[in-house]
Formats: sequence, C-alpha cells, structure tokens
Amino acid sequence: MSTPFVAILMGSDSDLPIMQATCDVLKKLDIAYEVRITSAHRTPEDAKKYVVDADKRGCLVFVAGAGMAAHLAGAVAANTVKPVIGVPIDAGSMGGIDALLSTAQMPGGIPVATVAIGKAGAKNAGYLAAQIIGVTDPDIRNNLIQERAENAQAIRDKNDNINI
Amino acid sequence: MSTPFVAILMGSDSDLPIMQATCDVLKKLDIAYEVRITSAHRTPEDAKKYVVDADKRGCLVFVAGAGMAAHLAGAVAANTVKPVIGVPIDAGSMGGIDALLSTAQMPGGIPVATVAIGKAGAKNAGYLAAQIIGVTDPDIRNNLIQERAENAQAIRDKNDNINI
Amino acid sequence: MSTPFVAILMGSDSDLPIMQATCDVLKKLDIAYEVRITSAHRTPEDAKKYVVDADKRGCLVFVAGAGMAAHLAGAVAANTVKPVIGVPIDAGSMGGIDALLSTAQMPGGIPVATVAIGKAGAKNAGYLAAQIIGVTDPDIRNNLIQERAENAQAIRDKNDNINI
Amino acid sequence: MSTPFVAILMGSDSDLPIMQATCDVLKKLDIAYEVRITSAHRTPEDAKKYVVDADKRGCLVFVAGAGMAAHLAGAVAANTVKPVIGVPIDAGSMGGIDALLSTAQMPGGIPVATVAIGKAGAKNAGYLAAQIIGVTDPDIRNNLIQERAENAQAIRDKNDNINI
Amino acid sequence: MSTPFVAILMGSDSDLPIMQATCDVLKKLDIAYEVRITSAHRTPEDAKKYVVDADKRGCLVFVAGAGMAAHLAGAVAANTVKPVIGVPIDAGSMGGIDALLSTAQMPGGIPVATVAIGKAGAKNAGYLAAQIIGVTDPDIRNNLIQERAENAQAIRDKNDNINI
Amino acid sequence: MSTPFVAILMGSDSDLPIMQATCDVLKKLDIAYEVRITSAHRTPEDAKKYVVDADKRGCLVFVAGAGMAAHLAGAVAANTVKPVIGVPIDAGSMGGIDALLSTAQMPGGIPVATVAIGKAGAKNAGYLAAQIIGVTDPDIRNNLIQERAENAQAIRDKNDNINI
Amino acid sequence: MSTPFVAILMGSDSDLPIMQATCDVLKKLDIAYEVRITSAHRTPEDAKKYVVDADKRGCLVFVAGAGMAAHLAGAVAANTVKPVIGVPIDAGSMGGIDALLSTAQMPGGIPVATVAIGKAGAKNAGYLAAQIIGVTDPDIRNNLIQERAENAQAIRDKNDNINI
Amino acid sequence: MSTPFVAILMGSDSDLPIMQATCDVLKKLDIAYEVRITSAHRTPEDAKKYVVDADKRGCLVFVAGAGMAAHLAGAVAANTVKPVIGVPIDAGSMGGIDALLSTAQMPGGIPVATVAIGKAGAKNAGYLAAQIIGVTDPDIRNNLIQERAENAQAIRDKNDNINI
Repeated sequence: MSTPFVAILMGSDSDLPIMQATCDVLKKLDIAYEVRITSAHRTPEDAKKYVVDADKRGCLVFVAGAGMAAHLAGAVAANTVKPVIGVPIDAGSMGGIDALLSTAQMPGGIPVATVAIGKAGAKNAGYLAAQIIGVTDPDIRNNLIQERAENAQAIRDKNDNINI
Repeated sequence: MSTPFVAILMGSDSDLPIMQATCDVLKKLDIAYEVRITSAHRTPEDAKKYVVDADKRGCLVFVAGAGMAAHLAGAVAANTVKPVIGVPIDAGSMGGIDALLSTAQMPGGIPVATVAIGKAGAKNAGYLAAQIIGVTDPDIRNNLIQERAENAQAIRDKNDNINI
Repeated sequence: MSTPFVAILMGSDSDLPIMQATCDVLKKLDIAYEVRITSAHRTPEDAKKYVVDADKRGCLVFVAGAGMAAHLAGAVAANTVKPVIGVPIDAGSMGGIDALLSTAQMPGGIPVATVAIGKAGAKNAGYLAAQIIGVTDPDIRNNLIQERAENAQAIRDKNDNINI
Repeated sequence: MSTPFVAILMGSDSDLPIMQATCDVLKKLDIAYEVRITSAHRTPEDAKKYVVDADKRGCLVFVAGAGMAAHLAGAVAANTVKPVIGVPIDAGSMGGIDALLSTAQMPGGIPVATVAIGKAGAKNAGYLAAQIIGVTDPDIRNNLIQERAENAQAIRDKNDNINI
Repeated sequence: MSTPFVAILMGSDSDLPIMQATCDVLKKLDIAYEVRITSAHRTPEDAKKYVVDADKRGCLVFVAGAGMAAHLAGAVAANTVKPVIGVPIDAGSMGGIDALLSTAQMPGGIPVATVAIGKAGAKNAGYLAAQIIGVTDPDIRNNLIQERAENAQAIRDKNDNINI
Repeated sequence: MSTPFVAILMGSDSDLPIMQATCDVLKKLDIAYEVRITSAHRTPEDAKKYVVDADKRGCLVFVAGAGMAAHLAGAVAANTVKPVIGVPIDAGSMGGIDALLSTAQMPGGIPVATVAIGKAGAKNAGYLAAQIIGVTDPDIRNNLIQERAENAQAIRDKNDNINI
Repeated sequence: MSTPFVAILMGSDSDLPIMQATCDVLKKLDIAYEVRITSAHRTPEDAKKYVVDADKRGCLVFVAGAGMAAHLAGAVAANTVKPVIGVPIDAGSMGGIDALLSTAQMPGGIPVATVAIGKAGAKNAGYLAAQIIGVTDPDIRNNLIQERAENAQAIRDKNDNINI
Repeated sequence: MSTPFVAILMGSDSDLPIMQATCDVLKKLDIAYEVRITSAHRTPEDAKKYVVDADKRGCLVFVAGAGMAAHLAGAVAANTVKPVIGVPIDAGSMGGIDALLSTAQMPGGIPVATVAIGKAGAKNAGYLAAQIIGVTDPDIRNNLIQERAENAQAIRDKNDNINI
C-alpha cells in the first residue's frame, strides 16, 4: 500500500481554479493528495475505477468538486465507504444553488459531506479532510491547531490595523 | 430482440405512487414498459447493468424518477445514448426544487429530458416517451393525436358544465 | 416530403448566441436543421403556422429557446405531437430560474423536454434531438456513440495534463 | 355589441375554487362577467377563438388564472390589446412561485397585469378589473370607493373588538 | 381638469434609466405623462399628496417603479382607485426577486398590476397603461394595434436575416 | 404623557395568533403595550394617525406584523424615528419569504428591525423591544437577564431528561 | 464608565467597505462608535470577550456585519441583552440570501434586529442604532428628525431636476 | 480517557424525533454516542464547555442538528478540530433552506460537513460519522460495507415485489 492520501476529483478542468484551494490547504497541512479530472456522466467508468483503485491504494478521504447538477460526489460516494466531501461549484447562472442542492440533498445511506459553494468550500474541503485524518493522526491534528491559531492571529492583526 | 419498450426506473418504492402515472399513460397509448426500482447511489452497478441490458433488449426510451439530489436520470443517461426522461419527485421538504435542479441542470454532452415535478411530470414522461416513439411509429402518433383530442374535449365538457 | 430535420425556434435574435450551440451539435452529428425567430406572444400565428407546416414537411423534433416567462416551447408543444425540447435562457435578472420553471412545469398532457439553463442546455438540446432521432436511425446513434467517446477522451486528455 | 363584461378564463376546473373570488368581487361591484375553462396548451385554438370573439362582443378586461408553467394569461394577451390580468395559482409543490414567474416575467410588448398568488390575487383581479373599467365609468369608480370604505370600516371594527 | 395623463413615480433617481422605457412607450403611443421622484418611506406625505392631486387633475393610470422592499406601488394604490402598475426594479443583490414579491403579493382589496422585473417590465408598464386607456379610447387602441403589428414585423425581419 | 409602552400593529386579525407571542413576552417582562389592527393599504390614514399619536403619547418601540407584501412595518417607520420592529408572517403559499423580503429589504434611511418569520419572530419582537427599552432601563434589563437565565435552565432541564 | 457608544463588529476586513456606511451614518448623527474585526468561528473567544467588555464599558447597541453562514450577530446576541443589529453581507455567489436567512431566522429568545443585505442595510444599521439611542436621548432623536428632513429634501430636489 | 464516541448535539428537544435517526444508525453500526440538548445562542457557554470536554474525553466526531438560523454546528466547529457534521432541520416555514444555508455556507477555515435537510440528513450523519471512524477502524468499515450490502439487497427485494 502506498502513502495515505486525499483524492481530489473534479468534473471539468474549468473547476481547477476553485479546487486549487483544496490542494493549497492540504499542502500547507502536510497531507499528500492526488488530483483527477473525471466526470460522473461523461466518464462514469473511469470515475468508478479510479475511486475503487484509490480506495485500495490508501486513499483516506475523497473530495469531489462539481457544478450545476453536481452528481460527482454522489457517484464517488456510491463506490466507497470512505468519507466523501462534496464542493458545490458556481458553474452556471444560478449562483451555485443547483450544485449545492445536488450535492447536499443525498438520500439516506450514501452521505456526502457538503461544504460551501465555491472557493470558501474548496478551502474547507481541505480543512475537513485534514480533520478527518486528524481524528487518529495527532500530527495532522496539531497542524490544524497551529493553523487555526495562525488564522486567528491574522484576524487580530487585521483588527489592530483597522483604519476607519 | 424482444418487443420495443419503455424502461421506467425509480430510486425508491416510495416513488411508485407518482411514477404510476407514467405507466397509466403508456398503457393507454398501447406502449409496452418495464418498471424497476434501482438506485444511482445504493445499487449503482444494478442500475448500470439494467440500463445496458435494457438498451440491448430493445428499450427505446428510459424514464427515471427520483427525489432530493435526484441523480438517477443522469446516471442512466451516462450509460446509454437512448433518450432519458427525468421526473423530479417532491420527496423532501423543499417542494421538489432540489430534484428539479439535480435533474435539469445536466452538463453539456449528457442530456436529460426533464419534465415537471411530481404527478404532472410523471404523466408527461409517458406522453413524451410516446412522442419520441411516435416520431417514426405512425400508430403511436395517431394514438397521441386521438388522446389529445379526447383531452381537449374533456376540457370543453368541463367548460360546458361550469356552474358559477 | 423534404429531408427530415430538426426545427430550432427562438423568441428573439438575442437568443441566437446561446442557440448557436444547438446548431453546432446538430451539424457535427450530421443532422439537418432549420432556425426560426418567432415569438409565442408577439407573432403567435406565425409560430403556430411554422410548427404545423414544419411538422408536415418532415420535422422530427422541435427545439425552442426562450427567456423570462418562456412560453415558446409550450406554445410549440400545443401544436404538434412531435417531441419538443425547451431551452431556458438566462435573459433577465434572475439567473434563468424564471425560464426554467416556465419551461419545465408544464401541465399533464403537453410535455416539454426541458434541458439546462443557457449554453449547456442549448448544447444538450442538440444531443437530445439526436438521441431521439437515433432511436430508429442507427447512423445517428453511431455518431452519438462516437461523439461521446471523443468527449470522454477529451476529459482523459485534460486529466493527463493537469498541472497543479 | 352586447353588454360590456369581464372575461374570466382558467386552464382547469381545479382552478374554480380560487377564481370564484374574482367572480364574487365583480358581482358585488355590479360588473358583468363570463367564465370559461380553456387551456393555452390543451385547447389553444378554443382559447384564441374565445378571446378574439369576446373582444369583439364587448369584453373590456380579461382575467386568466393558471398554475405551474402558467401560460394562459400570456396566450390571451398575445391575442388582444385589451388589458389582461394574470392570477398565478399554487397548483404544484412549489407554493406558486412557478406560476408567478411564468405570469409576471413577460417580455416587452405583451404585458400581463400580474396579481398575487392564489385567493388574494383572484380577489384583486376583480378589484383591478373594476378599477380599469372605473377609469371612465364613474358608477364603478363610486362602487370601488364605497367598497374600499366598507373594507376600511371592517378593519376598524376588528380593531375595536381585539381581545388580547 | 387638465389633459388626461399617466403618472409615473419612482422612489429614487437611480430608477430613471429603467423607467425611461415606460416614458418612451407612452410617447410613441401618443399618451401624455408626468414623472415624479418620490418615496413611500422618505417622503410619504409628498407621495400621497401627489397621488390625490394627480387623481383629481385627470390621471388615468399610475405607474410606480421601485426596488428592494418595493412599497411605492402599494402606497400609491392605497390612495386611489385608479389602476396602479408596479414595476419591480433590480436594485439590490437579489436580482429583483425582493421587489417582485413586494410588489405582486398585495393583500386582497388593494391590487397592484405587477409587470416583469426591470426594463422589460418598465416597457410593458407603458403598454399596459395604454391598454387600460384604450379600453374606451379607440385612437389609443388603434395605436396599440399598429405598434403590435410593427413589432411583429420587426421579428419577421429578424427572422429573414438569420445568418447561422 | 402617559406610561411608556410598546405599540403592536398588525394588518389583519388573522395575524393575532402569531402576534400574541409578542404580547406574552412583553407581559412577562412587565412592559406595557397596546395592540392595534390597522392596514398600510386599507386604512393608511388610520395607521399613520395612530403612529403619530402613539409616538407623542410615549410609545417607545413599534412592532408591526404583516404577511405577503408586508408593507406595514415600513409604513410605520416612515412616520416615526422611534425603532420599528417588523415581524414577517407566513400568510400566503410561499412560507413567508415574501413577507421577509418585503420587511427586511428597506432602502437606506428608513430602517426596519426585522426578526424571523412567524412565531419565533413574534416572540423575538417582544425580547428585542425589551432590549431596546433596557438600554436605559436597568429594571427591564434585569428582567431580560433573569428571563434568559430561566430559558437557559429550561434547556438544561430538557437535556437532563433526554430519554433516547 | 466611558462614553456611551455603538460597537460595530465584522467577521473579515473584506466587510469594511460595506460596514463603512454604518460608521458614516453614526458620525453624521454625532454618535461615538468602535469598530472591531472578529469572527464568530475563527476567534470566538475574542468576540465573546469583546462583547462582554464593551457591554460593561457602556456600549448601547451592537452592530454585526457578516456574509455567507452569517453567525456573528447571533454569537454577539448570545452574550449580551443589549440590542444587536445584524447586517447580512453579499459575500458569496448567492446574492446574500444565505446571510439574510442566517441573520434573520434566529430562534425565539435571542433576537437579532436584521436590516437589508449590503450597503443599504449597513446604512440602516446606523440609523436604527441611532433610533434606539434616541428613544431616551432627545438630542439624537432631533438629529434623526433633522437628517430625515434633509433626506426628504434631497429627494424633492432630485424630483425638481428630472430631465426626462 | 473513556471509550471513543460520537457526540450528538441539538438546539432544542423538538429536534429529537429527527436526530433519533442518527442514533439509530450509530447503534446499528455498533458505535458509542452521547446526546446533548444545548443551544448556540441560549446556552453558549454550556455548548462550548461540553465540546471542549467531549473532545478531551475521546469524542471522535461531533454531529449537530439545528433549524432556522442553524448556528449550532458552526459554534461546535469553532471549538474543536474534530470533524463536525451539521444536520439542517426543517423547523420553520421555509422547508429548511434557512438551516441548510446557515449550516453549509461556512467561511474558509472552519468547515462543517453538511448533510441533507431532515431525516435523510440525520440518518446520513450517522453513516458519515461511521465512515470517518472507519477510515482507521476496519471493524466499523466492515460494518458499513455489510450495512450497505443489506440496503442494496432491500432495494432489490422491493424491485422483485413491484406490483404495478
């Protein structure tokens, strides 16, 4: 089995600028990850094969970003019992509410851990994946605690520099 | 190859009372159909196998009814180039807007022919399937023309009996 | 009777840049089509006459694109039993939800096969029309299978070139 | 030419309990009216013929009630330059927002005077029709002023009887 | 009493570019109008006085354009039994749905004739005002018929020049 | 000047069962109040006169409950510089989103302090009025602190009695 | 105890351009204020400590601006019985409806006085804070009356300069 | 340290019938859990103390169910780096969209793993918690695989018993 990692899937290369935020958080927290472009609808077999294979190779958490009728996270979740995080992407004309509902409103039995629409969500997918890994990995948990402290300090610094 | 037919899929037996309307219309228009309960998320392989097999056995049109994050029609559409009609079902607390968006907002390349939420939509799935078959089958087209005339007459009868 | 074709209608010339996507898909799949600008509200008789005439001349499928209170697809559907595909267009300030509901929520008896809002939907209207024709036309079905394989390969190529 | 009147159309007899409120207001204000059940989609020619004929026979204002993808008011408006009032009806699972948008979001050139969803709207369709007639008919205007005074008094009476 | 006219009110000068469309239509149809900036909330007494005075001076129809919690049309309607047309304006971050609901969802007894959000609605407010006047003024009705014929011709011309 | 008090207005007696919750909270916190049924649209002058008079007689805070195109709170706010709390009421078919937007989306200059839709909001209107009075009245502030402690204790008691 | 003041909190420095409008109104009305950047989620203890401390130091009213799942106003309200005004900010892709609902739909017992989304709301937060202070401070009340008269005059001036 | 467990929090005892579904799933999968009623707004300190303490005592995953402006999951997430699952509850008049947005639209840095509104979501919160624990606990993972197979079989059984 290879190094444990997070698998990041997205339905289209147009989702890359958003999903980059997940990568950045994982990199900062020292967590390995793989990125795949694969579609629930246009390459369903590829998607499935990748999920089953990644699961066996040590994937701990899946992250799937998709827009519109965002089925990718659900399709991943149907093929693994590892946690799947869904990032709804604002890809059409509706501000992403289509993707949010398509990702969050999963039927009982196949959960998708849904985060916010767009960049904030992509970032939080990284943090949530790390939190999941951190449940049993104290190093990652410490990285998260450290990172959160830095983020809090950044807010305090901004507060100290208000010029209004 | 067996008799041409319409395949009607739904994600849960709780969708049966709605999807019955599709069956009723097809029966009335003299079109053979099969009904399957199978889930995009809970039995994804069953769903896929059924679609591929039905496609080979002479299925002309697929109808898929699902609620909430309604992925079933999309999952069917990913596995056939036959037309797929999606019926959004009002299965949660949002009046079916979740199912409508999950069904209609498909990405370019994999269309789902979406009809109205709930019973009106299930009924129209039957009519639309018949219209698709009717493109090259004059008997079915005549059935549709006849049926439409009867429906129009029914409205005229109601109009004649207004008591207001 | 002339060559079988798809009829593409839209309510305004401002819809042309969106509906071009339907034309492009049909052209690529080797399906003849006609384009008409005609309005359910401003030229209702023209619209009706065109539909009735096109139906007789061998139109197999109608595609109607419209924004806001998008009635065009419904008005077409009221005058034919050929399949009618509705493309909701984001023409006002609401992201197209007005057009989506006006197109999809048709009452029982007169179906409109609704696709996604905007360009993705216009593209899928082309694919869906081809699928409908492909039900009995094996050449078109083969074109669709070929096209889908190419689209899948395009995603695989993008995946191979991720640079993140 | 017969007596001037208001024409009240609806797409289905299931709309009658709502549209009764329009009739009640007109009766109280001493305005003649006709009621027709006719559908923009299922009996489009009947609807058109009725509108053209009613227009000639002295119809002053049209009122059209419809639910879901409520096209009836727009279809009426396309066939007359008399004012058309649209009553969105809550007929599906979405609380009537589909009917409201399908009625109100008309493109430039063909207005529909939209009122509230459901009973309050049906009532106001009656008042609005009366106001339109009252622009040049002082008797009707006086009836409206009288009625409004009575309504105001009814509120004052309720206020006097609060027991809280 | 002065010449009959349409009174156009708006809550802010930022609404002028939208409401200009109402003026343009009325000018083209040869209908006199007045324009006032006055607010239901910031100058409620001015608004009321103007409505009462305009009513007496021969105002036939009121048009009120407002955004956000758009109360202006309702406030006008509370002070006259002349028809009041409300134009919801997209003035905030919600695409105008706030203004549409605030304008259309009037309680029974005080109707507002609501048109579409934004420019299409402002244009239709002009047409609807003309239709109301045209109920008893055959010249205006003829202007409307003429104008509608020209609009239909414009669509036909566009259709003839499609280059796709 | 009479005793300071909170004025509670509502557009219809059908709002009383909701607005009762405001009364109950004020009574419990020992704050005097008056209740009036008066409508922004049907009795605009009464509403205005009451507000101006109540303001002079020592009203500290106004609370206005209304449904649909809920203009009452805005109409009150236009006639006083005392704080006005708006309670959106779920009175139509849209779950109260119409009333929420009509109450909250006030233009700059005339604020309405909007609370939640329905009973929770009516209750909070009482608490918010008390908080406003409590800014300078230590007795009321103490009542609020006491009440909040009791509410917290009630939750703790429920927690102690979970039987799951 | 120091001078009475309004405390303005926001979750991020990206909210400053919106919340500046609150400051501007308070400055104009001669009311002291403090501004803090602090987050309900990233610096919850800081936020709480600031609220408790500001409360003791003479803070009369809290204003909290936040976007997306806007919890800041609620978190402030949980720690004080002073009035808390919530400004929903349009910070994501949904036009601020997420922030509006997260701010307004507070459960019974802990009210947040919610104003409009974005700049209009931030401005009104200033006016509402002043109105709350003005309940017992006649100078501030006079400032509000004066300011409102100026705003009304500004509208009249705009009206006098319409050039349409 | 005590046995590892899942902590289930809810803001009100009225949420118990929904959140029972989480308990049922965990029980079936042989995972220990604790249930607490505690409110982000009414007992913020209790909530915080419980989270910090549970975290230390071996809580692996938190589940928080709340309706309306559902802040509880966010408030939990602000006090731990363990994964927090949020269950939006349909507690008001809006079908739970308020709770969904308040739970899912978390800002970058503090993720909440959001599941569907209501019972389906509560059930999936149990499955998701189990999946998170199953990342490193093969027994739980096997329970999940077993359970999923049973669920799939249940669908197949329903399919075999269709009587349509």
